[in-house]
Amino acid sequence: MTNANALPQTQLVVKWYPPRRDVRLESVPVPRVLHPDDAIVKIDLAGLCGSDLHAYRGLEDISQPHICGHEFVGHVVALGESFTPFSSPSRSSLYGRLCVGDKVISPFTTSCGDCHFCRLGFTARCVSSLLFGSPALPGAQAQYVRVPDAGGTLLLVEPSSPLMAIPDQNLLLLADILPTGLFVAMQALAHPKLSPVLTGRPWPASESGFLNVEASTNAAPLTQEDRTLTVGLVGLGPVGLCAAVALIDRLDILSVPVRIVAVDTNPIRRNKAQSIISTFSNSTLEEFHIVDPDEARVLVREWGGGGCHAVLEVVGTPLALTLSHGLLAPYGILSSCGVHQAPALPFTGREMYNSNMTLEFGRCNVRSLSVSATGLLVRQQGALSKVVERIVPLTNAVEAYERFESGEWGKVVFNVWA
Amino acid sequence: MTNANALPQTQLVVKWYPPRRDVRLESVPVPRVLHPDDAIVKIDLAGLCGSDLHAYRGLEDISQPHICGHEFVGHVVALGESFTPFSSPSRSSLYGRLCVGDKVISPFTTSCGDCHFCRLGFTARCVSSLLFGSPALPGAQAQYVRVPDAGGTLLLVEPSSPLMAIPDQNLLLLADILPTGLFVAMQALAHPKLSPVLTGRPWPASESGFLNVEASTNAAPLTQEDRTLTVGLVGLGPVGLCAAVALIDRLDILSVPVRIVAVDTNPIRRNKAQSIISTFSNSTLEEFHIVDPDEARVLVREWGGGGCHAVLEVVGTPLALTLSHGLLAPYGILSSCGVHQAPALPFTGREMYNSNMTLEFGRCNVRSLSVSATGLLVRQQGALSKVVERIVPLTNAVEAYERFESGEWGKVVFNVWA
Repeated sequence: MTNANALPQTQLVVKWYPPRRDVRLESVPVPRVLHPDDAIVKIDLAGLCGSDLHAYRGLEDISQPHICGHEFVGHVVALGESFTPFSSPSRSSLYGRLCVGDKVISPFTTSCGDCHFCRLGFTARCVSSLLFGSPALPGAQAQYVRVPDAGGTLLLVEPSSPLMAIPDQNLLLLADILPTGLFVAMQALAHPKLSPVLTGRPWPASESGFLNVEASTNAAPLTQEDRTLTVGLVGLGPVGLCAAVALIDRLDILSVPVRIVAVDTNPIRRNKAQSIISTFSNSTLEEFHIVDPDEARVLVREWGGGGCHAVLEVVGTPLALTLSHGLLAPYGILSSCGVHQAPALPFTGREMYNSNMTLEFGRCNVRSLSVSATGLLVRQQGALSKVVERIVPLTNAVEAYERFESGEWGKVVFNVWA
Repeated sequence: MTNANALPQTQLVVKWYPPRRDVRLESVPVPRVLHPDDAIVKIDLAGLCGSDLHAYRGLEDISQPHICGHEFVGHVVALGESFTPFSSPSRSSLYGRLCVGDKVISPFTTSCGDCHFCRLGFTARCVSSLLFGSPALPGAQAQYVRVPDAGGTLLLVEPSSPLMAIPDQNLLLLADILPTGLFVAMQALAHPKLSPVLTGRPWPASESGFLNVEASTNAAPLTQEDRTLTVGLVGLGPVGLCAAVALIDRLDILSVPVRIVAVDTNPIRRNKAQSIISTFSNSTLEEFHIVDPDEARVLVREWGGGGCHAVLEVVGTPLALTLSHGLLAPYGILSSCGVHQAPALPFTGREMYNSNMTLEFGRCNVRSLSVSATGLLVRQQGALSKVVERIVPLTNAVEAYERFESGEWGKVVFNVWA
């Protein structure tokens, strides 16, 4: 089942050292299958992600050197014994199908496919989930990577898939940032509080159907103006760009008129966002403003309605949360996919009560969103092909970390064999 | 249209004085119609609510004496000029229908019925909403009360309604605590994160239908055990009791098996809850434990699954939020209807991210939940008739505040004419 003997002994990797801003190129042993559920993947392209910068900056509570990176596209070169046509039908079908030579994309965390959380679809909180590029699991800024729980984790690119026609640097978006952008948009769009705007039926009639609750205000019927969605987007890094594309794509499908205000303090990022947004000509996209925080506050005040129906927070700092809250209307949804750290939430209980705020936080279930994210990538190839800005050799990793952190470079991808 | 001339000059009321624990019986002028949308209601019964205690304890940032109370059942005795059969069809139909002599229940806040928020069904955040029993609007621990925006606010008890057969002290639950208990339960049950458990379809397939998203985990199908909902309920005051009844009622309708752990530090409240819960014999109510916080933590650990799928927080303190979070599984929903005050939320951004927590906060839209809450009251009269513990004359208000605050008395209702 494996051809592990054919693998080289050593490989080139990017390794992080404490306390901060110390990444080094090193030669380390090529990983081997350690467990029957493992796959070894030969990496074609690996990504550098905004959340790699949390460790880079010393913001995570870790001190152990480790191989960086959690985004990769590659080919299977070795498989554990669980991968057999005689695999149990109660397990992921991938254990019965995945073969050496198959093209795969991996979510940035592993998921077993067997636990309560995986069965519910919450693969990001799988009980045995590991994050690539952390002390617990060597990362993918490397030439080879070991994938635990590979049958529950990997996304197989079938030979018949429309993904086969898409360049690897765009497929790499499926590892993290595109599903994460879709996730932060969906957490808002799928929330019952937005459904009066999206469906035209007042709360709570529009709550999830199975609740079967009747609305009973004494109020006037919804106007067309009530049904124009207003959304804030805080943070225009690579995930923010994906969130913008996901939002526009989904609202176009739903035929919901929308006004979006997208905010970043970095003019380079704002220009990049402008170049992507200008590719859209949706009839439902009434307004899309790309502004700095002060301009955003003025604009949202002019829109009226007390603020945006939802704000997507794609930064991961208390300052970004405070700005998001400032843009949000009462009964609004603050959907965050930022990797937040030790500081407390900058909200009092009274602010939460008085504004009927919803906070949605956390890590995207990349594995269970993969079909939806794939559809998005196929539909929006034009815009999304602009997200990755440059492909550099892995040997340029030190410079790439520096320039990505400073905001000078946008999304960077490593050719690990150049 | 009005018979205001027939009203007496003065009435008996309960008035709050700063800084704390100073409520007084006073004689004050009977209110008059001040605006065409006003109604004057002669009160039959008025409630004492847990949230009256926030001002009583000096926890609100207010210093102005005011008439207390925000729960009442009564009859219309005077109406402004807007109440006419020739009222605009774009306004609430109640302006064209409400008559002197009609029996009404009022939500604890007013709602205009004309603004963006009212049209969406978010009546609690109506732009001109006022809270009865605050410096902004004289309250209902009184014999008469003025109701602004009465056509958008009041719930008319039609002569043909099944509510006519229900005693006033139970109808009074519709003013605040029953819809609020239903609200805190619904914010959890209607959330897309719970729908895999409720529907058996993994996230995100079970997201609100209009999003039309496919699930795509590599995971095994859901088991029966996965589909047993686990819920924590923190706080067994009167609203907590209503939340418990709402939860059991709704899950019985949905035929969803559920395990509930209900927590309070006060043994009197736990006994009261036991007497209400023992009236249920739902086949879907697998377990209902009424325990103190330490027992709750042990129990939830034994259940496994990392904690409860949802926790309803019905207290309004940081301690209650911390306990709730401790009982919650990853990807859980913390639904709070507690009237929180100045302290910051006791959560860090990292805790929120790492647990994929949802926080739902705020005030119930009593007006738009009224049909649903009415159905609940009619179905669960037996259990809910035990919530109100005693009816006392308004002249006993000082003692009632003391004993209600100490937890010695449960829900108290005032006969304002005794």
